[in-house]
Amino acid sequence: MSACIFCKIIKGEIPCFKLLETEKTLAFLDINPLSRGHALVIPKFHGEKLLDIPDEHLVDILPIAKKLAKAVGTDNYNILQNNGRLAHQEVDHVHFHMIPKPNQAEGLGVGWPQQKTDMDQLKALFEDIKSRI
Amino acid sequence: MSACIFCKIIKGEIPCFKLLETEKTLAFLDINPLSRGHALVIPKFHGEKLLDIPDEHLVDILPIAKKLAKAVGTDNYNILQNNGRLAHQEVDHVHFHMIPKPNQAEGLGVGWPQQKTDMDQLKALFEDIKSRI
Repeated sequence: MSACIFCKIIKGEIPCFKLLETEKTLAFLDINPLSRGHALVIPKFHGEKLLDIPDEHLVDILPIAKKLAKAVGTDNYNILQNNGRLAHQEVDHVHFHMIPKPNQAEGLGVGWPQQKTDMDQLKALFEDIKSRI
Repeated sequence: MSACIFCKIIKGEIPCFKLLETEKTLAFLDINPLSRGHALVIPKFHGEKLLDIPDEHLVDILPIAKKLAKAVGTDNYNILQNNGRLAHQEVDHVHFHMIPKPNQAEGLGVGWPQQKTDMDQLKALFEDIKSRI
């Protein structure tokens, strides 16, 4: 945690373009943006992945992401939170991207390798997941 | 709204593999999955984009997405919410994807066209956005 760049930003040890701050959450501009207005919303609670963040911190996130999208004034945008290297997570402190999508070239590139739907398989999977909720 | 497929699912007029339901939120399996366990979390409040959803509905979303990721038992996963056709939104009722990323081929494809950082430009943008929050 002492080496976590986002924890250092929260503590003010590293500067940031701070857009919004609450007791539990910080929002600032991404300095390696995919598009104009690309911003991050992070819980002040240090956790690597979504499962590591207590609900009382999670509830703060989306209303702030909404405020950012409104202030940036973007019609097309993605809210994205990546968990794990395979899923493109680069900093191991949960962060939500608000990424404007002004055109095809800028902003998030979305690849959508849709699978063939097998309803029997899906039903079996459903029973399996449901039993663990 | 009467034609909205997700509103019909909420009303029970169209069946779904319902994983979780609260007063404000519904979660179910995506029947066109990108990977095993791909699920959706939607507010029962009809709104096209994030900005259209009241905060009291938004706060319910992430704790439920977290429960789904835990139940599916996935280490790598993306939380994604698309706004607008350019940003890959296909159903005009806000929905959050929880998409497991078991390997490179399955799950969300993430394209990351990072821009060159211009600190002066970023600072000017920051002042501009900040003034509208």
